[in-house]
Amino acid sequence: MARVSTPLSEKLGLRLPLIVAPMAGGPGGPDLVAACSAAGALGALGFAYTQPDDMKKQAAFVRSKTHQPFSIDLRVSSPSAPIDPAAQRGALDSVAKYYAELDLPAPEPVRIPYAPELDAQITAVQEIRPRVFTTHLGALPKDRVDALRAAGIVVGGTATCIAEAKRLQSLGYDFVIAQGGEAGGHRGTYLREPADALTGTLALARAIVRAVQLPVVAAGGIMDGAGIAAVLALGAQAAQLGTAFIPCPESGAPKIHKDSLLAAREDDTRITEKFSGKPARGLVNRFMREMEPAPQLEYPAQNKLTGPLRQASGKAGNGDFVAMWAGQGVAMSRALPAAQLIEALERETIAALQSGAALVRE
Amino acid sequence: MARVSTPLSEKLGLRLPLIVAPMAGGPGGPDLVAACSAAGALGALGFAYTQPDDMKKQAAFVRSKTHQPFSIDLRVSSPSAPIDPAAQRGALDSVAKYYAELDLPAPEPVRIPYAPELDAQITAVQEIRPRVFTTHLGALPKDRVDALRAAGIVVGGTATCIAEAKRLQSLGYDFVIAQGGEAGGHRGTYLREPADALTGTLALARAIVRAVQLPVVAAGGIMDGAGIAAVLALGAQAAQLGTAFIPCPESGAPKIHKDSLLAAREDDTRITEKFSGKPARGLVNRFMREMEPAPQLEYPAQNKLTGPLRQASGKAGNGDFVAMWAGQGVAMSRALPAAQLIEALERETIAALQSGAALVRE
Repeated sequence: MARVSTPLSEKLGLRLPLIVAPMAGGPGGPDLVAACSAAGALGALGFAYTQPDDMKKQAAFVRSKTHQPFSIDLRVSSPSAPIDPAAQRGALDSVAKYYAELDLPAPEPVRIPYAPELDAQITAVQEIRPRVFTTHLGALPKDRVDALRAAGIVVGGTATCIAEAKRLQSLGYDFVIAQGGEAGGHRGTYLREPADALTGTLALARAIVRAVQLPVVAAGGIMDGAGIAAVLALGAQAAQLGTAFIPCPESGAPKIHKDSLLAAREDDTRITEKFSGKPARGLVNRFMREMEPAPQLEYPAQNKLTGPLRQASGKAGNGDFVAMWAGQGVAMSRALPAAQLIEALERETIAALQSGAALVRE
Repeated sequence: MARVSTPLSEKLGLRLPLIVAPMAGGPGGPDLVAACSAAGALGALGFAYTQPDDMKKQAAFVRSKTHQPFSIDLRVSSPSAPIDPAAQRGALDSVAKYYAELDLPAPEPVRIPYAPELDAQITAVQEIRPRVFTTHLGALPKDRVDALRAAGIVVGGTATCIAEAKRLQSLGYDFVIAQGGEAGGHRGTYLREPADALTGTLALARAIVRAVQLPVVAAGGIMDGAGIAAVLALGAQAAQLGTAFIPCPESGAPKIHKDSLLAAREDDTRITEKFSGKPARGLVNRFMREMEPAPQLEYPAQNKLTGPLRQASGKAGNGDFVAMWAGQGVAMSRALPAAQLIEALERETIAALQSGAALVRE
């Protein structure tokens, strides 16, 4: 059967040039990663909030399900630091009423360490040795990148502007993920104010393809094979889709998140810092609206603070306090098992590429 | 020689599926329109601020240069209405110091009529009978659309969300221009708050292709043939490019606008209401920054008020007060005569479509 391949998809050992976005927390998870990798895409474990021991367990689970390659993604963020008591009180006060509404015990101050240490996480990656490792929200120093590559790992990084893509290139990264403004979840911006780096996927992916020599993966707003074909036409060597995979039965997202994606309009998303402390795009809900003026902790302490709310709300089937990450392609969501979705995406991509070429008349 | 065609480009009589965006004021103008239409694209006269007599003169000029089809675009906005004296004073006060800085006489109150009447403009379109007529910032009633179509004019309208595209379809429009968030110049939004309708081109164009039965033209962030190929892969039947044509020698934009585009970074644009009263994307400059908190008039009265500033600033080669409209693809700007640019775009589009199909392996 016909398939689509690029130098990058061949290098990574994929059936098709498709990366399923790392989605830390609920939406990703090892079931979805294993299903996607087994079906020929690159599944990606989003380990932003995962401790090294659990990283190893999840990676071992994926390997128990498939021998196909998978990826691990980490966020390059500052280590846990003591939180100023006044900031702590302000942030606790702004969420206390929601804890009460959900019958949760009053929120407790966030104490260090409130997140895994990046160094220990990277050491775990070196032990796990996935085929691919990617970074978000920052870039690793060159010696770190070199060490990972020397272990046979292909290293990618996220860029939301041309300058970040060039930085990754200069640090020895193997490929760049161009994250357009449409993308759901956390903005990967690290050299600018995130609000100043919201160039749309079409413009950004093309500009980055032209600006660097590395293979480019395009992310943001891609929901079907026509979208994949479009970014391949831009010169990207793969597409990265996140939102499209959240409704899959293998995704660990709460049902209310999946149902809300399937019902959403294209302009129902906004960027908020209120769930984690860093800007991320998701469906507008009550928490995002009401918290807009309220104080918050920095990333990732705020994520720790909102964790019980998000989980209780999701379990109760109530979308008010769930971080329902979604990109601007959300109106095109569909609910299919991962393997069927990947098969459809492959078929649609081939059809769109061939229809495109058929527009050329001699 | 090979060329690219779609049902829409054939219907409109174009050599390639390319519309050069209507750009009211300096950047467009009859020289650029004639050059683009003569080269096989669809040139478009942006007549937002143009009186009927001048519309006819400019259309006659284009016809004196080429027999190829061209388009006329109007903005569907409210008629001139008397301006509240307090609003008038506030707006005058906020620009007076800039008038003085440029050695202009003090600004005068904006008086009705400060813009052409839409009815008279539409009557002029019916007399001119261009091959194509498009609307921006609103939709015409069905009887108006029917009358224009009965005169042999193909009628298109701008949509920035799915709902607007469906509205155009229900009103009998022939095609929809999907204006993504990347696009430079005025946002065409008319059913939502413009800030809530900034879906990126990749996601929006695809969602609209899937949501309506009409041919779709994609606009926003497209600067080269790879971008055109990408939107064709999304199922669009043409691409609309504006920013890409502003540096052309045939464009009437001030030199400082052209030079600034060629030097700009991809994230140097912002959306402002300060030049015209309606949100439009352009390069950040001093006027946009300093006017941010200042009062303004409504569209298009504010455009009248800022006119002398924009013109004097442009003539002086000073970009501080020029409305330097630009889309998010601006970092890919190049300076070529229109015919050469169109030839390059055609060549690049064909190459990208064929390279895309070559990724499919049997």
